[in-house]
Amino acid sequence: MNTSSHEDVNSTQSDTAGKVISCKAAVLRGPGQPLVMEEIQVDPPQKMEVRIKILYTSICHTDLSAWNGENEAQRAFPRILGHEAAGIVESVGEGVVDMRKGDHVVPIFNGECGHCAYCKSDKTNLCEKFRVNPFKSVMVNDGGTRFSTKDGEPIFHFLNCSTFSEYTVLDSACVVNIDPNAPLNKMSLLSCCVSSGLGAAWNIANVQAGSSVAIFGLGAVGLAAAEGARARGASKIIGVDINSEKFIKGRAVGITDFLNPKDLQNPVHEKIRELTGGGVDYSFECAGNADVLREAFLGTHDGWGLTVLLGIHPSPRMLPLHPMELFDGRKIVGTIFGDCKGKTQLPHFAKQCMRGVVNLDEFITHELPFEKINEAFQLLIDGKSLRCLLHL
Amino acid sequence: MNTSSHEDVNSTQSDTAGKVISCKAAVLRGPGQPLVMEEIQVDPPQKMEVRIKILYTSICHTDLSAWNGENEAQRAFPRILGHEAAGIVESVGEGVVDMRKGDHVVPIFNGECGHCAYCKSDKTNLCEKFRVNPFKSVMVNDGGTRFSTKDGEPIFHFLNCSTFSEYTVLDSACVVNIDPNAPLNKMSLLSCCVSSGLGAAWNIANVQAGSSVAIFGLGAVGLAAAEGARARGASKIIGVDINSEKFIKGRAVGITDFLNPKDLQNPVHEKIRELTGGGVDYSFECAGNADVLREAFLGTHDGWGLTVLLGIHPSPRMLPLHPMELFDGRKIVGTIFGDCKGKTQLPHFAKQCMRGVVNLDEFITHELPFEKINEAFQLLIDGKSLRCLLHL
Ligand SMILES: NC(=O)c1ccc[n+]([C@@H]2O[C@H](COP(=O)([O-])OP(=O)(O)OC[C@H]3O[C@@H](n4cnc5c(N)ncnc54)[C@H](O)[C@@H]3O)[C@@H](O)[C@H]2O)c1
Ligand SMILES: NC(=O)c1ccc[n+]([C@@H]2O[C@H](COP(=O)([O-])OP(=O)(O)OC[C@H]3O[C@@H](n4cnc5c(N)ncnc54)[C@H](O)[C@@H]3O)[C@@H](O)[C@H]2O)c1
Ligand SMILES: [Zn+2]
Ligand SMILES: [Zn+2]
Ligand SMILES: [Zn+2]
Ligand SMILES: [Zn+2]
Repeated sequence: MNTSSHEDVNSTQSDTAGKVISCKAAVLRGPGQPLVMEEIQVDPPQKMEVRIKILYTSICHTDLSAWNGENEAQRAFPRILGHEAAGIVESVGEGVVDMRKGDHVVPIFNGECGHCAYCKSDKTNLCEKFRVNPFKSVMVNDGGTRFSTKDGEPIFHFLNCSTFSEYTVLDSACVVNIDPNAPLNKMSLLSCCVSSGLGAAWNIANVQAGSSVAIFGLGAVGLAAAEGARARGASKIIGVDINSEKFIKGRAVGITDFLNPKDLQNPVHEKIRELTGGGVDYSFECAGNADVLREAFLGTHDGWGLTVLLGIHPSPRMLPLHPMELFDGRKIVGTIFGDCKGKTQLPHFAKQCMRGVVNLDEFITHELPFEKINEAFQLLIDGKSLRCLLHL
Repeated sequence: MNTSSHEDVNSTQSDTAGKVISCKAAVLRGPGQPLVMEEIQVDPPQKMEVRIKILYTSICHTDLSAWNGENEAQRAFPRILGHEAAGIVESVGEGVVDMRKGDHVVPIFNGECGHCAYCKSDKTNLCEKFRVNPFKSVMVNDGGTRFSTKDGEPIFHFLNCSTFSEYTVLDSACVVNIDPNAPLNKMSLLSCCVSSGLGAAWNIANVQAGSSVAIFGLGAVGLAAAEGARARGASKIIGVDINSEKFIKGRAVGITDFLNPKDLQNPVHEKIRELTGGGVDYSFECAGNADVLREAFLGTHDGWGLTVLLGIHPSPRMLPLHPMELFDGRKIVGTIFGDCKGKTQLPHFAKQCMRGVVNLDEFITHELPFEKINEAFQLLIDGKSLRCLLHL
């Protein structure tokens, strides 16, 4: 693995600031179609925008859902997906003062402008203008795209990021500066899965030492929640997945017990209650499935159990809970990006990873060159990878 | 109104301790039937039980639901309903040390034993053994009833209380001692509606000064939540009810704006967002209706809005919310008895009422002799009363 290449790239590249850049991107032309490696045009950043050279990117389940076109309204083609990445600032647009060429950065799909009422509130990480918005496919500045084909056809943006491209343009609210000494390949994970999971455990659940936890869905997001719970000293962390292969990596991030619902006669929440004397203190739904959500809810202890919803639910199914079930003292709360305010919190997360408070070693299970992105998609679909890091 | 009678009653009554008491009770013999004033037998309290003489009782919407037999499983007849009351201890069973004959008390339908894991947790008010349980119709001690007809037919208990009787027997965990200087007639309200509403505003929402609030359903519970919000300094309190007559009392407890959904073209949450620049900080559902719950949820501000569910939902309809709607930062939480730990918190509430921090003047809109209990039911059904206080 070549982790030193980005420094050279930055110092040796010709100055492209202010110019259109031609580069390679993986373009999606229709739901479920293989991504096509195309030569595209990337416009310079406009006011308060940043253009970055992506060095590493990986695929999150949310990219899968968008790729599938599971939600009709998300279908804007051609489009460049991707939102988990790390790179280097190539140039900045007018007004950007907190970043400059050469900075090590990670994009965030849920931005932080820093001065709207939401950014100023300590109760939310949903920036007024730059919060996650799956329906957004253009830049806010001018309602246009910064990507186009060689023939000038616009290519749409995705989730404030579009990282499946050698170069991409983002609002500066959606780019976070990271300590240049941090390993940029692993910092890519902070872009989405690891921050979402850690944030869910720390910002939302506020997991206490000695407490019990259940994680439903042991992908990278679920394992990051487990890692966050482990770092806080949770004494029992139950991992639930229908793919028992996920248990191997789970053990490494501190999961103490595994349950495969397929191996059980009864609903998994009954087994969890049995293992914990009435239910866990916190559960995390990281599978994106309504039935799983109900099990996660019922698997918590009555009186004080908290279920944190992370999974994206593309199905139109409503919450499978009866209002009266909220009277047993079980709570449920949803979170985007683990309630992290990205610009504020990610530099600190990076430090905690560098110090070993959080261990990122298990999350990158595969590495491939960017060209093999369709293989990387397949690895995630097949449940074989946590994250496959693509090198650009 | 005769508020001094209870002192005489206590000092002049013959000592009935240890004996069966014959007295009048309003007995329900089948769903929706008029209550029948009957002569019944009330057994002495057993271990850790208390027999109290009820002086005042009123009717809560939860009694209405049980009376209707809305929930099949609650149908245990004959039965004595009622759970909002105040009275005087007649005698105590073996082991009861925190109460004695003559004490002024209010029953609580959601008990507090004080030493189970739940009572020791500061996160819940759901006592392991004595929490509210609509399916319970007998005493925990021996699985029997303390009420019977003259012919010895058992009469079932209701909601840990059964206050529609001159004498009733409760677990001591479900009886709270109140300052003898407090006006016992009003203390009856602390038994359920006022504590539930105040607790929802204080314990759960933790309403902040200057914040905005919406109350859905302006019965006694909703108005108590409004009163709690007013006492905390909320600057905007929007009352929503389909019965505009409720607005009159609402004004007295500090409601600043009224909305009758029947007068609006659009869903009420849109109007609320318009009035508050995006939604209220807190909403309280006190109507027991799933559509109202959805409006209450959508009427809060994204990012930080909290909906507190108080209404009892007898319909089998599930929560009308999509999992993804939890990602907008709106939260919903249910509460029994406003999350009050009754024995711990009610004596303090009583003091706050005596000091005028909380004003109970508006809640008792009617008073009738016990015999006219069916009239009192009708007043609540017709939406004419908040609470009709019955004098025993
Ligand atoms: N809320 C957020 O901000 C946020 C951020 C990132 C990802 N997500 C979402 O979190 C979820 C997890 O993302 P990921 O990248 O880790 O996905 P992933 O595909 O790597 O992992 C999902 C895991 O869930 C398991 N699973 C599927 N169905 C299951 C079932 N019925 N019972 C138990 N386990 C089951 C799979 O086997 C897999 O291991 C996705 O829905 C994703 O869209 C949300
Ligand atoms: N959670 C608890 O611990 C607890 C405690 C006490 C009462 N409750 C429940 O709280 C609710 C209120 O109790 P209450 O005694 O004040 O009842 P109530 O009957 O006095 O008041 C209910 C109010 O809701 C209004 N309403 C009905 N449908 C409505 C609609 N569609 N939109 C707007 N308003 C509507 C009615 O007009 C009425 O004013 C009931 O469901 C009751 O069972 C819960
Ligand atoms: Zn993601
Ligand atoms: Zn902002
Ligand atoms: Zn009640
Ligand atoms: Zn208890």
